[in-house]
Amino acid sequence: MGVKQNILVIPSVLPADFSQLGNAVVELEKAGVDRIQWDVMDGVFVPNLTFGPDTIASARKVTTLGFEAHLMIVDPDQYIEKYVAAGCELLIIHAESTRHLHRTLGRVRQAGAKVGVALNPATPICAIENVVDLLDLILIMTVNPGFGGQAYISTMESKISSAYELANSFSHEIEIEVDGGISSSTVEGAVSAGARTLVAGSSLFKHPDGLEAAVTEIRNLAGQAKRKA
Amino acid sequence: MGVKQNILVIPSVLPADFSQLGNAVVELEKAGVDRIQWDVMDGVFVPNLTFGPDTIASARKVTTLGFEAHLMIVDPDQYIEKYVAAGCELLIIHAESTRHLHRTLGRVRQAGAKVGVALNPATPICAIENVVDLLDLILIMTVNPGFGGQAYISTMESKISSAYELANSFSHEIEIEVDGGISSSTVEGAVSAGARTLVAGSSLFKHPDGLEAAVTEIRNLAGQAKRKA
Amino acid sequence: MGVKQNILVIPSVLPADFSQLGNAVVELEKAGVDRIQWDVMDGVFVPNLTFGPDTIASARKVTTLGFEAHLMIVDPDQYIEKYVAAGCELLIIHAESTRHLHRTLGRVRQAGAKVGVALNPATPICAIENVVDLLDLILIMTVNPGFGGQAYISTMESKISSAYELANSFSHEIEIEVDGGISSSTVEGAVSAGARTLVAGSSLFKHPDGLEAAVTEIRNLAGQAKRKA
Amino acid sequence: MGVKQNILVIPSVLPADFSQLGNAVVELEKAGVDRIQWDVMDGVFVPNLTFGPDTIASARKVTTLGFEAHLMIVDPDQYIEKYVAAGCELLIIHAESTRHLHRTLGRVRQAGAKVGVALNPATPICAIENVVDLLDLILIMTVNPGFGGQAYISTMESKISSAYELANSFSHEIEIEVDGGISSSTVEGAVSAGARTLVAGSSLFKHPDGLEAAVTEIRNLAGQAKRKA
Amino acid sequence: MGVKQNILVIPSVLPADFSQLGNAVVELEKAGVDRIQWDVMDGVFVPNLTFGPDTIASARKVTTLGFEAHLMIVDPDQYIEKYVAAGCELLIIHAESTRHLHRTLGRVRQAGAKVGVALNPATPICAIENVVDLLDLILIMTVNPGFGGQAYISTMESKISSAYELANSFSHEIEIEVDGGISSSTVEGAVSAGARTLVAGSSLFKHPDGLEAAVTEIRNLAGQAKRKA
Amino acid sequence: MGVKQNILVIPSVLPADFSQLGNAVVELEKAGVDRIQWDVMDGVFVPNLTFGPDTIASARKVTTLGFEAHLMIVDPDQYIEKYVAAGCELLIIHAESTRHLHRTLGRVRQAGAKVGVALNPATPICAIENVVDLLDLILIMTVNPGFGGQAYISTMESKISSAYELANSFSHEIEIEVDGGISSSTVEGAVSAGARTLVAGSSLFKHPDGLEAAVTEIRNLAGQAKRKA
Repeated sequence: MGVKQNILVIPSVLPADFSQLGNAVVELEKAGVDRIQWDVMDGVFVPNLTFGPDTIASARKVTTLGFEAHLMIVDPDQYIEKYVAAGCELLIIHAESTRHLHRTLGRVRQAGAKVGVALNPATPICAIENVVDLLDLILIMTVNPGFGGQAYISTMESKISSAYELANSFSHEIEIEVDGGISSSTVEGAVSAGARTLVAGSSLFKHPDGLEAAVTEIRNLAGQAKRKA
Repeated sequence: MGVKQNILVIPSVLPADFSQLGNAVVELEKAGVDRIQWDVMDGVFVPNLTFGPDTIASARKVTTLGFEAHLMIVDPDQYIEKYVAAGCELLIIHAESTRHLHRTLGRVRQAGAKVGVALNPATPICAIENVVDLLDLILIMTVNPGFGGQAYISTMESKISSAYELANSFSHEIEIEVDGGISSSTVEGAVSAGARTLVAGSSLFKHPDGLEAAVTEIRNLAGQAKRKA
Repeated sequence: MGVKQNILVIPSVLPADFSQLGNAVVELEKAGVDRIQWDVMDGVFVPNLTFGPDTIASARKVTTLGFEAHLMIVDPDQYIEKYVAAGCELLIIHAESTRHLHRTLGRVRQAGAKVGVALNPATPICAIENVVDLLDLILIMTVNPGFGGQAYISTMESKISSAYELANSFSHEIEIEVDGGISSSTVEGAVSAGARTLVAGSSLFKHPDGLEAAVTEIRNLAGQAKRKA
Repeated sequence: MGVKQNILVIPSVLPADFSQLGNAVVELEKAGVDRIQWDVMDGVFVPNLTFGPDTIASARKVTTLGFEAHLMIVDPDQYIEKYVAAGCELLIIHAESTRHLHRTLGRVRQAGAKVGVALNPATPICAIENVVDLLDLILIMTVNPGFGGQAYISTMESKISSAYELANSFSHEIEIEVDGGISSSTVEGAVSAGARTLVAGSSLFKHPDGLEAAVTEIRNLAGQAKRKA
Repeated sequence: MGVKQNILVIPSVLPADFSQLGNAVVELEKAGVDRIQWDVMDGVFVPNLTFGPDTIASARKVTTLGFEAHLMIVDPDQYIEKYVAAGCELLIIHAESTRHLHRTLGRVRQAGAKVGVALNPATPICAIENVVDLLDLILIMTVNPGFGGQAYISTMESKISSAYELANSFSHEIEIEVDGGISSSTVEGAVSAGARTLVAGSSLFKHPDGLEAAVTEIRNLAGQAKRKA
Repeated sequence: MGVKQNILVIPSVLPADFSQLGNAVVELEKAGVDRIQWDVMDGVFVPNLTFGPDTIASARKVTTLGFEAHLMIVDPDQYIEKYVAAGCELLIIHAESTRHLHRTLGRVRQAGAKVGVALNPATPICAIENVVDLLDLILIMTVNPGFGGQAYISTMESKISSAYELANSFSHEIEIEVDGGISSSTVEGAVSAGARTLVAGSSLFKHPDGLEAAVTEIRNLAGQAKRKA
């Protein structure tokens, strides 16, 4: 099957009001998003600290949407089971965060979750060439992780293309996800290069016509770009 | 002046519903607490990750209560200004988290906040004997930090007493705070030993008669213990 | 009860022939030792790597002697259960090896073993003043750990005395152990200062009259020194 | 010359009885193995601690077989000379264990040993593309290192092939070694992909017909696979 | 434009008399060098400690030559602004020194300096394939960094060629620099492979005919090699 | 003998012109200083990088003054021999920089140098209570190390007194040194508390009447304070 072809629009909760995350999640569900991404940052792997398993678990009870945890943390192995227990159906491990990436990804599967891997902007695609058989998702970061609201790095599109080709040579289904600076002006480039799962933050939460319009806009632009590609 | 003698009751937000932290803070204010403690954990200094500056900042707008950040993180220096900007009037640095404790505490003051220092259960009181002149607060941990709901370690009371004596020999006002397992059954021991600022979590949030009753109960028991002492 | 007053003679296996550890253990049992110490070194906490749980477990089946593991390793928490499962009835944690010494010692107890703590030569006795209630044994290192055959540091005797006094003020039984350079010429100083459990390596294995004579000699000299003290 | 074409069968001693390693080594020599691999683990680079230079040195005197040390340790530079002094004729350095891999490998040669490099399952082959001229051996891990008895990761065969091609473009002789899950059912895949030096553990020690039969079986199956390739 | 084609000869100051660095810099300027490289080593990233921003700043006032800082340090992000403030117009970041290379390089630009990246001998060229658009210079190390006076590693020439091709596919100007063992006997190989900016240390300072002759010699040999290529 | 009673005035070279260190050293010798302190900083133990062994060695040939190296570096053990070879007769190790302080200090002696230990402002005096027999010098930091020109922390005087008492109970000669903010206005406090060896930087180099006058002034004020004490 190779690359999963459905367009998925997934919010990052970074721009939400953290004092009312439950409300934010409910609003996102109403707006028609496909899943929710939790940007887990530890202040060590990235220069910001956001939230951990208990925050995610607290939001688990207000929605039926799937949750993915984007683990921007050092030494992720020890926390895998906690994020699955918090209600995440998909865990995304940074290739730069573990000396034994193959084992870490295997442990995610063993814990009962789907398996994703993320690459920082500078990390070459070859970092994952030996683990694709373990993957449900490849996340190509289009900003340096740590903060919302950063500008899309368009030179990542060649890496998106490489990820697409690499994933498409496998017989199981793999999502190609992008995260960072995704908005109406960048979605075409990302999708043309091969992205199908689009994480958006500021462009959703700050859209003048509201969340639902924003989600629809991203989805439509992505659909058009995919048909052209 | 030495040790500040007012009894202060301060909730840890760890047991709150993290999907509605704003509501929790409003409820705590109504219940009559004196300040709010934010348990900042990074998953490296302690084996749990909770929340960082953006979560605290989001709650800043719903209350006029003072905020203290209990920084259970490695390398705190780089984040001091962010926690002050998030609205914390007091920052608590773990003595075990920095090679240059005197400098780190000085930076907290320079950033415009009050200065606290925390000691893990095993850490001897001599770890702070050279920095007391910089302090507004000494936090004696009565559990090993990382999680709410743990049992009070009563052997810490001799350390509380030592902190009391140490602080009382200085001419500026210093709070003696305890955190961990504080409830109606442990408050007497802690206050008798010298604690005056009491952080409570589970015992407040799980009290059968509600938050306000719980706060009042802790406050009254503490007042009685102080008078006896 | 305070300090346990029985003299115990305990071999370090460092000088043994590692290709026949089973034989060495059998010989030690015949020689009348009271327990066996396993010097676990990871090459990071100390500049030498020796052996881990599987080596200890392999020797478990050839003797009924008790085993103690002296863990000279970084991040001991993650390995506690393995050393207990390997057959150690007592685990000794270095105070310098963990940020949360009180928690680590508690985990040893929880795992079903007796609890010891070790202090490097430079580490002051106050490092353990808040954890004595958790302890079955205090190990005062009389050499810098890492290698067998080093010379006894006699200035540690004042620390041995401090440990003795500290332990003796508690109502449960605590062993005072020394390790490093213990031989017929140093045992008197150590025991006079308060040591009762004596770890010996080279002086046992290289004794001209054999292991049993060596053990008896240490035991007798220690007994005399204790009676004098 | 490129890839060394002789089939070599090499035991890992992990499944041996560590209380009688000398006997195990003698048995392995009788069984006709070509060299002995020592799995050196420090509990930091991998989640297990096995043995260090003194254990290897103790076995050195009971056999004339060559020894290789597979160094699964952090900061290997400081220990290179000790493993050579312990009697290892070949040292295998993990590419993930040093920031200056080219220098570390050069130091192995300078210390008087042959030079190998190992790659964790996730590590891409390009990690060694600039150091092949320094190598006598490339070890492609077919399990995540840390424990014996794990299952062979067959997707590593494409990396074995890449290593074969890379090595074969050089004019000096280089061994292609595999380690992890090698048994009668996996040897064909590994050899077909290009492996010639086969490390086996459980499949040797637990063979129903004994060590010698097991070694012969692996050797024969490997020979057949090589001829087909 | 791709690779910048001018030959530049740049001294490393490592062999200079550090008690009279000002004089050394003046001499180098007279000798006709094109820029000065400062080998900043911290004793952690490399096994030597040399000098930091204050040393560079002290030399800034005695010459109008451009300065480049070759940062052989861990965690370079926190020091970028200091090296720019010290008067460096170009900062060279090691690809192995930061988890977020793309961000670090962006910060150099933001601080107002030109952007270089360095690769240790073992580091593959793919480590920088996603950051070339940010670069003014690629430094291929031809020794393992840490000391002057080491021998040129000629196998790096294939990496120099790869860097040349990679850089030449971009439309902005990028220098290809080499550092380590550059002398009259190695410059041809390096330039033929694609190097245009040549860092030399011992071969300049120890040249029998003096600095100026040495610079001229390197420059001429490089010019010839470039024309042949 | 206990505390060495001679007043020694020792310059820190931090304020010197690093482009002409040789001249600075010659000037300092003319000004009558008793020894020269080299502030070795690695950018990791302290937030500044200064210079290492080669800089010190380059200045060794222009003076006959004794050199002391104040090692503000992580992992000092590996560099001890280099600083001795560079011409330092005294090495000062930070108590906070090594897990095995007793061993590190012993290695300094073994390398042929005198042995000093330094304490950061927050570090309690008990950190060295078990190593005094190894010491020729105790350095009480009166600023947080990293930069010249900082203000004297007068609360360190009680630690200076404790160091004096501790040292004076030993029978060999030990210097009590202070470093940080020492000037005509602070020398009395430091000497009254027990300091005898005074490190000064800015107050020497920026004195309106020149270096020699500055040295004489410090020496005289110290002499008066000592006589009063």
